[in-house]
Amino acid sequence: MAITIAVDAMGGDHGLAVTVPASIDALNTFSDIHIVLVGQEPLVQAELEKHQYDASRITLQHADQIVEMDDLPSKALRNKRQSSMRIALNLVKDDEAQACVSAGNTGALMAVAKFVLKTIPGIDRPAICTSMPTMKGHVHVLDLGANVGCTGENLMQFALMGAVLTQAVDDNPKPRVGLLNIGEEEIKGHQRIKDAHKLLSDTSINYIGYVEGDDIYKGDTDVVACDGFDGNIALKASEGVAKMISFYLKEAFTKNLLTKFVALLAYPVLKSFKSKVDPRKYNGASLLGLRKIVIKSHGGADQFSFSNAIAEARLEVIKNVPELISAEVSVLLKQQSDNSESKSAD
Amino acid sequence: MAITIAVDAMGGDHGLAVTVPASIDALNTFSDIHIVLVGQEPLVQAELEKHQYDASRITLQHADQIVEMDDLPSKALRNKRQSSMRIALNLVKDDEAQACVSAGNTGALMAVAKFVLKTIPGIDRPAICTSMPTMKGHVHVLDLGANVGCTGENLMQFALMGAVLTQAVDDNPKPRVGLLNIGEEEIKGHQRIKDAHKLLSDTSINYIGYVEGDDIYKGDTDVVACDGFDGNIALKASEGVAKMISFYLKEAFTKNLLTKFVALLAYPVLKSFKSKVDPRKYNGASLLGLRKIVIKSHGGADQFSFSNAIAEARLEVIKNVPELISAEVSVLLKQQSDNSESKSAD
Repeated sequence: MAITIAVDAMGGDHGLAVTVPASIDALNTFSDIHIVLVGQEPLVQAELEKHQYDASRITLQHADQIVEMDDLPSKALRNKRQSSMRIALNLVKDDEAQACVSAGNTGALMAVAKFVLKTIPGIDRPAICTSMPTMKGHVHVLDLGANVGCTGENLMQFALMGAVLTQAVDDNPKPRVGLLNIGEEEIKGHQRIKDAHKLLSDTSINYIGYVEGDDIYKGDTDVVACDGFDGNIALKASEGVAKMISFYLKEAFTKNLLTKFVALLAYPVLKSFKSKVDPRKYNGASLLGLRKIVIKSHGGADQFSFSNAIAEARLEVIKNVPELISAEVSVLLKQQSDNSESKSAD
Repeated sequence: MAITIAVDAMGGDHGLAVTVPASIDALNTFSDIHIVLVGQEPLVQAELEKHQYDASRITLQHADQIVEMDDLPSKALRNKRQSSMRIALNLVKDDEAQACVSAGNTGALMAVAKFVLKTIPGIDRPAICTSMPTMKGHVHVLDLGANVGCTGENLMQFALMGAVLTQAVDDNPKPRVGLLNIGEEEIKGHQRIKDAHKLLSDTSINYIGYVEGDDIYKGDTDVVACDGFDGNIALKASEGVAKMISFYLKEAFTKNLLTKFVALLAYPVLKSFKSKVDPRKYNGASLLGLRKIVIKSHGGADQFSFSNAIAEARLEVIKNVPELISAEVSVLLKQQSDNSESKSAD
């Protein structure tokens, strides 16, 4: 049976010009998916007509409204019930699709998804999780901005969800999980982090302790759990440095005719280097902790990026990620209640 | 009159092997400085003998103890009164030197420096401030890890100190000051950041509002103020990404004989690129808010890096940074008391 993915065709900085061709790319790559393009039908149709595609594998679903990139989450929730984002999520809720992909406004997507799809019992706050390149492969980091001011319990849930995702999509049976902090000494950091440290040490999660900002990229940790504020700072600062480095690299290679000639010779090398750290390969953040699969694409995603977000959605459907999280949460809750019973019996 | 700089010769991962030749380099670069090397005299003397130097411009000051890189600040403070770090700071306190440079343990340096030198009246917590490269020049960021869990008032003081430093050392009369946050909407972020936002809007500081992690590197902000936890996460994540990128760049250029040949041709280009983002050029973080000048070098600094930290110390002595901060704090305190008086008179 085909996997049906609902695509918010209007979302993102480039809207249909990216979402439609990227959807067609994904259909060409994966023979097992069907895509529902949700958006203003005449516009979606007009964009589709620019491309060659298998009409039997794409469905159009009309949506009157668009959630703008600067709409407040509350506004998207209350006043945009006919938006492409909301209707795509409704399709998932009604089991007409197994996953939703949107490049729309993150805050709105999280708020509407939480409202429409609900959180997994035992999970207090869903988190945004993305994979990022490291020197040895990649790492999953969460939360990246949905939750500011988490408790230790929240952080422990993020760690659990990140571990389950990594087990499932990376076939990694025992992912190493770290907590983002500013020093390895146990005295440093916020109370919530110390609380999470204690909680995690009592679980069956393969918890390796505190990690610092630079450890994210070393490849010795598979999952980094953190408050959404801290994760967002780390992610954005990283993006900023990477852009600055690429800016100066380009500047050096385009300085004059000679350097341009060298650039030409170095092109295959630079290309192979770029492919290793290409953020577009890592596009597609998971909204973990919801009962169904929702993938957030970077707002500025191009066609290649957005099709990677669709690929991530497909993989999570195949791996049944929300069900796995739900099962692990039950185990954890049972462990915790057993622990507290055995402690009170002591 | 010469500027005397007390160098903690034993500090850092490489100790004397870096601090001594770097001090000699600094003496050769700046004809107006004198250096006091503080450390275990026979060892310092042995290292000095490996080099050529002008003996009239270097003084040795014996210190029995060493603050180890993993000593707790409390231990350094209580049990290492004869350490090279402490004695170097004592020289500054006693006006035998105008600044201290150390590559030792950051926490210990801050704790001992606060105890020995005291903070400027009106400044509650000193902060660690470094300059970092941007696409258009550089930016000063503070705090980088000395203060976790700041108040809005603390953040405002960091903003003020960063602005004063930038005015002084960059000859920038009106530095643009931003507050690190995770979104530009006023609803996001921690309460302390919202408090600081309000406080800063009422000062004569050229406050430009919230900035995100990636804005640090864009070059449109001259000072970024933040809690020490957030600043440390941003700094370390940035370091991690930069190292990863340089790792993959090297990997691509050393893959085989052909790529190595291309690397040879591209060498001048890669060198000019590297010089733009070389973190060693930015070595030398200021412990701002103390009554005297203390510069923290990166622990892993090499000779070139460490001599840049000495250069930063010299510049801050010439510009009289602590006195400037002290004067600006007085102005700010007066503004605040005038504001509250005029408000209560309304």
